[in-house]
Amino acid sequence: MSPTAAIIIIGNEILSGRTQDMNVQFMARRLVALGIQLRLVLVIPDEEQAIVRHVGEASRSHTYVFTTGGIGPTHDDITAEAIAKVFGRSMVRDEKTYQVLLDYYGSCDLTPPQAKMAMIPQGASLIPNQVAGASGFRLENVFVMAGIPTIMQAMFEAVEDQLQRGAPILSDTVLCHLGESLIAQGLGVIQKKHPRVDIGSYPFYGQATGHGAHLVIKGTDPEEIARAAAEVRELVKKLGGCAPHTKSES
Amino acid sequence: MSPTAAIIIIGNEILSGRTQDMNVQFMARRLVALGIQLRLVLVIPDEEQAIVRHVGEASRSHTYVFTTGGIGPTHDDITAEAIAKVFGRSMVRDEKTYQVLLDYYGSCDLTPPQAKMAMIPQGASLIPNQVAGASGFRLENVFVMAGIPTIMQAMFEAVEDQLQRGAPILSDTVLCHLGESLIAQGLGVIQKKHPRVDIGSYPFYGQATGHGAHLVIKGTDPEEIARAAAEVRELVKKLGGCAPHTKSES
Repeated sequence: MSPTAAIIIIGNEILSGRTQDMNVQFMARRLVALGIQLRLVLVIPDEEQAIVRHVGEASRSHTYVFTTGGIGPTHDDITAEAIAKVFGRSMVRDEKTYQVLLDYYGSCDLTPPQAKMAMIPQGASLIPNQVAGASGFRLENVFVMAGIPTIMQAMFEAVEDQLQRGAPILSDTVLCHLGESLIAQGLGVIQKKHPRVDIGSYPFYGQATGHGAHLVIKGTDPEEIARAAAEVRELVKKLGGCAPHTKSES
Repeated sequence: MSPTAAIIIIGNEILSGRTQDMNVQFMARRLVALGIQLRLVLVIPDEEQAIVRHVGEASRSHTYVFTTGGIGPTHDDITAEAIAKVFGRSMVRDEKTYQVLLDYYGSCDLTPPQAKMAMIPQGASLIPNQVAGASGFRLENVFVMAGIPTIMQAMFEAVEDQLQRGAPILSDTVLCHLGESLIAQGLGVIQKKHPRVDIGSYPFYGQATGHGAHLVIKGTDPEEIARAAAEVRELVKKLGGCAPHTKSES
């Protein structure tokens, strides 16, 4: 069985439409490369009750949980304390982070918001922040990271080596310039014949592209993928879907 | 109480990182304008068990649920049948859609995949698809829409009038060219003083922008927002965060 993962985006700014999430796709691609199955993504508000409930549930039902957002020094950054509650831990000062922050601010003491960034749940291991903001941390199977994409990406890369890998998930894509309903029947037959691959059909419509679908054959056995993909290509060719249609179809 | 909403993206292509979701931000912004609180976003795989469970849960705990994806004619399009199961309905042929498809394909009968696009749960009301693919539908408080952004947007606009509106959610944003830890204390005081607004701090770091944060004051009472925003502006000004710093701070 492949390891599984859930991503939990903690962010009112995504729920209000203020910010376009850019973290899910980055992590999704990395997880595919590691052979870890991403099974669930959640976006939840910066509220303790929501964080405790959803992170707790996801932690019990997935190999790994990755959270982003809410680890800064302001009043709305409540992720670290909420995660501590999930596992019944208290918050403790991480002396190394405290020292890094003292050096960074060049002062002999930290203000309470600065000091807050050095607090992590007891027993958590640090995920350093290269930009001298709040550190992330790992607690049990939960990885708590920053919401800013560049920082999150550096944090993810810093913990990749800790993750158990599965068989790499491979895929082949066939471009088809036909409406889905024309290929659906044949595609269903090929899917039934190759139960160990997943065949997905992702339609597109556009003035420039015309309409059609990307047919994606996914799995862990390269030979099985090659066989199924060859049949899909044959189907598309037989139905005349290899090249874009020159006349408009709509 | 404002009406609440959950969005459920049904899509292996998002979970694999193949596709960047563009539907959440569109709906999130529209919901803000309608005064409907978006409380939860989920991305789940194209699997019946996951759809039935998550849509059922979200339907019971939110005023509205919006799903995107999985309503086409191919074997991996299982959303409509899964939603029917959530509410214990059977699938029936929608005669109007059937006729539209017959006209579209210009034939006297439809192939099974084409006919599949005219099947909706009993008691559902149609959400027309302007691009002549599968229709969406509303069943109880669940709106089932296409995954392709242009089609989803047209479907959302077609149902907006059916939604109960809440007090519009207003906001004001203050740009602050200071690290969050410098403003955190003062910002927390202002938040405590104005419990009826939500103050969020969204940091940014960049070569071009320097570092700082967008401070967003959100609520439904314009006067309360104006008062809190004035205090936030005063705080930023007092701390010297109105203009970008000319020297690098990192």
